[in-house]
Amino acid sequence: MARTRHVIAVDVGGTETKAALVTGTPTGVRPVKQQRRPTRHGGDAVVEDVTALVDELRSASEHPVDAIGVVVPGIVDDATGTGVYSANLGWRNYPFRSRLEASTNLPTAFGHDVRAAALAELRQGGAQGLLNAVIMPIGTGIAAALVLDGRVSTAPGEIGHVDVGHGDPCGCGQTGCVEARASSAAIARRYTQRTGRPVKGAADVARLLDSGDTDAAAVWGEAVDALAKGILLLAALLGPEAVVLGGGLALAGPLLTDPLGGRLDELTTFQRRPELRPAALGDEAGCLGAALLAIDMLEDR
Amino acid sequence: MARTRHVIAVDVGGTETKAALVTGTPTGVRPVKQQRRPTRHGGDAVVEDVTALVDELRSASEHPVDAIGVVVPGIVDDATGTGVYSANLGWRNYPFRSRLEASTNLPTAFGHDVRAAALAELRQGGAQGLLNAVIMPIGTGIAAALVLDGRVSTAPGEIGHVDVGHGDPCGCGQTGCVEARASSAAIARRYTQRTGRPVKGAADVARLLDSGDTDAAAVWGEAVDALAKGILLLAALLGPEAVVLGGGLALAGPLLTDPLGGRLDELTTFQRRPELRPAALGDEAGCLGAALLAIDMLEDR
Repeated sequence: MARTRHVIAVDVGGTETKAALVTGTPTGVRPVKQQRRPTRHGGDAVVEDVTALVDELRSASEHPVDAIGVVVPGIVDDATGTGVYSANLGWRNYPFRSRLEASTNLPTAFGHDVRAAALAELRQGGAQGLLNAVIMPIGTGIAAALVLDGRVSTAPGEIGHVDVGHGDPCGCGQTGCVEARASSAAIARRYTQRTGRPVKGAADVARLLDSGDTDAAAVWGEAVDALAKGILLLAALLGPEAVVLGGGLALAGPLLTDPLGGRLDELTTFQRRPELRPAALGDEAGCLGAALLAIDMLEDR
Repeated sequence: MARTRHVIAVDVGGTETKAALVTGTPTGVRPVKQQRRPTRHGGDAVVEDVTALVDELRSASEHPVDAIGVVVPGIVDDATGTGVYSANLGWRNYPFRSRLEASTNLPTAFGHDVRAAALAELRQGGAQGLLNAVIMPIGTGIAAALVLDGRVSTAPGEIGHVDVGHGDPCGCGQTGCVEARASSAAIARRYTQRTGRPVKGAADVARLLDSGDTDAAAVWGEAVDALAKGILLLAALLGPEAVVLGGGLALAGPLLTDPLGGRLDELTTFQRRPELRPAALGDEAGCLGAALLAIDMLEDR
């Protein structure tokens, strides 16, 4: 039986940084105390703010803190503890792990936000018990973390930027990307383009859909079609038992999963049709995953 | 340092079954003596023929035989040692491993032919040293074995049956499949459809291409385009360092890799453009991989 550990977990997000004092083992963790603050731009500022959050939570802890786990967005090299690239947050090849170990004097696990969130969903959330799964947060963009043979792969999982044939241009320079029709941002933008009526986000479009708005139904249907075709590719290549849907769009619940499941039923031929499951941990998943990375690191020593 | 093992490896192919007495360690094996015979239809017939091949090679061995490794096509469940489904060879949920252990009285490793071939390419062939790679044999069909984080994944890797948008129907029931334009069989069939001139296979089309035949160039170009789009999907989702091309079509060498590399250069935006490498082990890869499965099993005991 693994020892109970006390760690501090930090999820550096695009706009907000979440930190938590977390207690648990590799099979399950729970937050004891939480802190948030806006994310500043640049590697040095992030290290400074993470260090301050760690100091605050550490002084609030009843137990000695064993380690910290920190996750960031963008391209991450887990092995070397490097933030390879973040366009939004403004770093390139920034040595987060070594800087954080120096500034906090604590053993530091460092990883990728989406993959860490997937680890938490796998150990104690919507993907529990699955050997092969895709964990897909759908928000401003669409990402995917791939669980293969029971482990969260380091694969990029850029399902938002595969060409599913609809022909619309995407910010990435390609056409036909899943994200160009099915991200929350795309759904809101396309509804406004079609109707001239502003909406705050995909949740507004979901409400309009539910009230019988035919423009909302058209935009939503095209989003569902793009998502289904993306999931079909994943099914052919990876054969996941389930796709675990997270992020803002997944809050639409059956408004999303009913038509998406139906479209998958229509499209599937030889592929295993993956189950659709909701993510369970919401926006805490990244922080809990960061804690699990720290605890796994301690176990491996 | 791992012990040198002596195993018998059998690769049950669609038309021919290859068997070899193999010597080596997990990092490298070599065939000592080989046998071939036509493959018969059905699980029972295959077990009977594999047992006969094992008996022949066993009596020819100077060393006691430690184990056997057997690989088959179709859908395979490695964990339970089951041939889940083969349309060509006519079995469904056939318990190969337990039947072979009973008939040969030898510890038996059982696996999938394409994944086993990939294991051999990874340990001692064209994929040596790679952590993330796709090994893609192109012949009558197009398969892919995925190497992720240094291990051959059990993922189905059905890159032949992803939709890359050309719209042509495929035998699998979908349209736009890579295989419908880029398999050796499709290249030969489409050349004949276009010209009315029969060809024996894709090698004939490659020769016509090389001699300036414009119909061959058109068919070849469409094959290259479909392959490049399939590889682009793999790059977005999995980020392989290299795609290792095998099977009959890869024998075309630069006639294939030069235009394929060029098309990938054109299509790649954010993805890491994978290197293209030739497979190194030819049609021995499956047998060598089966031997490695047997040796790995012995090491794990």
